[in-house]
Amino acid sequence: MPAFEVLVEVTLRPGIADPQGATIERSLPLLGVGGVSGVRVGKAIRLTVEASDDDEARRVVEDLCARFLTNPVIEDATVSVAAASMR
Amino acid sequence: MPAFEVLVEVTLRPGIADPQGATIERSLPLLGVGGVSGVRVGKAIRLTVEASDDDEARRVVEDLCARFLTNPVIEDATVSVAAASMR
Repeated sequence: MPAFEVLVEVTLRPGIADPQGATIERSLPLLGVGGVSGVRVGKAIRLTVEASDDDEARRVVEDLCARFLTNPVIEDATVSVAAASMR
Repeated sequence: MPAFEVLVEVTLRPGIADPQGATIERSLPLLGVGGVSGVRVGKAIRLTVEASDDDEARRVVEDLCARFLTNPVIEDATVSVAAASMR
């Protein structure tokens, strides 16, 4: 069965406070860096999924996100399926 | 000046232990999910950078990664610059 490399980007939903991002943004002027705004820190989860095609790989991972990987009250998940390799 | 949306994916370098990823992977069979392996958990940092072009935006963010956003001993950073919007 082919194996698909999948990236899940988990972001805090708009309006949810992001203390990590706020701390980074507050520190930038002290480092002499200007022109950077809107810093938000999320998670990037990479996994390998064995599936018959990329639609099935996406379905498996979206199910995992809803049940387990994210908290849908405060987080959004974006699933990207990359090229397959044969096993 | 145009503003660029930038995504920084911070991953643990190969060989660095990833307890979060290992815990997720160990839990999957208990949830009835098979065929998933190689789970690695990193950070996805999104920011908006004002710069004259996307090369300059990338340069600013790569400098930030090296100085501040990542620990280059244990982490790798991948910078992706997305389309610009005018401010």
